[in-house]
Amino acid sequence: MVKNKRLFRKVSIIGLGLIGSSIALAIKRKNLAQVTSGYSRSLKTRNAAKKLKITDKIENNIGNCVKDSDLVIICTHLNSYKSIFKKISPYLSGKTIVSDVGSAKESAIASVEKFTQNKINFVPAHPIAGTEKSGPSAGFAELFENRWCIITPLKNNTSKDINIIKIFWKKLGSKVEIMTPSRHDRVMAITSHLPHLIAYNIVSTAADLENITRSDVIKYSASGFRDFTRIASSDPTMWRDVFLSNKDAVLEMIGRFSEDLSVLQKAIRWNDGESLYKLFSKTKKVREKIIKAGQDTTDADFGRSKRK
Amino acid sequence: MVKNKRLFRKVSIIGLGLIGSSIALAIKRKNLAQVTSGYSRSLKTRNAAKKLKITDKIENNIGNCVKDSDLVIICTHLNSYKSIFKKISPYLSGKTIVSDVGSAKESAIASVEKFTQNKINFVPAHPIAGTEKSGPSAGFAELFENRWCIITPLKNNTSKDINIIKIFWKKLGSKVEIMTPSRHDRVMAITSHLPHLIAYNIVSTAADLENITRSDVIKYSASGFRDFTRIASSDPTMWRDVFLSNKDAVLEMIGRFSEDLSVLQKAIRWNDGESLYKLFSKTKKVREKIIKAGQDTTDADFGRSKRK
Repeated sequence: MVKNKRLFRKVSIIGLGLIGSSIALAIKRKNLAQVTSGYSRSLKTRNAAKKLKITDKIENNIGNCVKDSDLVIICTHLNSYKSIFKKISPYLSGKTIVSDVGSAKESAIASVEKFTQNKINFVPAHPIAGTEKSGPSAGFAELFENRWCIITPLKNNTSKDINIIKIFWKKLGSKVEIMTPSRHDRVMAITSHLPHLIAYNIVSTAADLENITRSDVIKYSASGFRDFTRIASSDPTMWRDVFLSNKDAVLEMIGRFSEDLSVLQKAIRWNDGESLYKLFSKTKKVREKIIKAGQDTTDADFGRSKRK
Repeated sequence: MVKNKRLFRKVSIIGLGLIGSSIALAIKRKNLAQVTSGYSRSLKTRNAAKKLKITDKIENNIGNCVKDSDLVIICTHLNSYKSIFKKISPYLSGKTIVSDVGSAKESAIASVEKFTQNKINFVPAHPIAGTEKSGPSAGFAELFENRWCIITPLKNNTSKDINIIKIFWKKLGSKVEIMTPSRHDRVMAITSHLPHLIAYNIVSTAADLENITRSDVIKYSASGFRDFTRIASSDPTMWRDVFLSNKDAVLEMIGRFSEDLSVLQKAIRWNDGESLYKLFSKTKKVREKIIKAGQDTTDADFGRSKRK
């Protein structure tokens, strides 16, 4: 597959949002393909991507986009997989690898089983990277640097194909981990999906209060609330699909969270300071582990630092 | 009260944690007092504060600390107010203003009513500033710059005294707002106390899961969870007192939050994508208002920026 020392001849990107655009820009930056091809079903997105030169070619037709590709990466919302696999299937050669970037794996994989059991070499992947912004203009080549990318291979994947996807993500600067779709979905449910759901929920609760406290919620947002609003401004369509696609694990985590919240609520109601103190000390230790693992710095920020 | 062009002759700080130390350092930086005096009941804290030169004098005796002060600022946990007011009361002159920095107002004010109705001129205040760190070494003079400080005057406060506290906080770089203790407590319950409680809760839920997912929670914390762990590593004693002191408003907000979460939970269970989409779009708008109000930047960060 390596020609002219490049990893791929043609890579096509289906879906040119934040992730798709960032992948395309990173491929160009790292010189991993002779040619990149992009497709979005939205004319507006295609025009924006063309203007920003996200990929070498922007196609109006998904078949033309994927034709002759070594690698096709699906970067669309989870509930569109089935229809996309159906549309691209006739245009793929036996050598083409199809991969994706979806945040939930089990149900997405199940939705395209019909295609992956026979014709399509699907090696699912999930780069743990993102910002709260959407669209091609939000993309940037460095998005995946020092981030994790989780590959959740199918049983019929060849180790060669898995390895190509692994090398690809390493070239984009990511650290790669291989796990089963089911473990991936549970880990993401607690580290990503539940935090996002909670953030959406608290911002919604506050928005309903606005009639009472008016602009106070906005004015004093720096005292904790603001951090939640950033998370809660992520792409609504993407997150709708994530929660519905990872339903079982998300519902389990909501259940655990609600149980724990009821215990806290009762401790407050009954002035049980000791239980509160004990719990708040426990959570401090989790933070210390994260800092020790190099996943964050100890330095305080709280919106002071100038962000790039 | 202005001598040698300084706002105060002597200011004493009771409690030398993050907030107390930062106030003392800011007073020195802005040259607002001829002399600053500090007290902590902990020998360890007093020694640390002495070494760091947080105040001009560090006293072992709280009476000596506040004696002859124009301004005394209580920077201790909320449940210590009553005992502190009792101890300092004999050492205060009629001209001394006592203020504080507490995050909950109504119950704290009620707890010292016996003293404030007669002898002590108590002008309560709450600077909306902080980091997740604790202790004198966490203090820094710039902590209050461009932050809000809410003053919640008592009925018997003179406008002159209120004005002195207002000028004081403006000199520290803060924007000042005056409101009733009750409104303060409701606004803080939704913008600060509930977010902290939720963050503590989700980190605790995840910590209990660690047996299942092992280090995965730490490893993939960057995908949303990490932001919560920072909030959830704040001082346990302080937050225990905040929740117990602002019990009514906090319990009300937990109730609203839980209701809303149940609605979301049901929408996920019943595949009601439309409701999810609608809610996630609503929260995006709250974020836009915060950015418009200058309370945050639009730029993505997610732990990338080097923090000071």
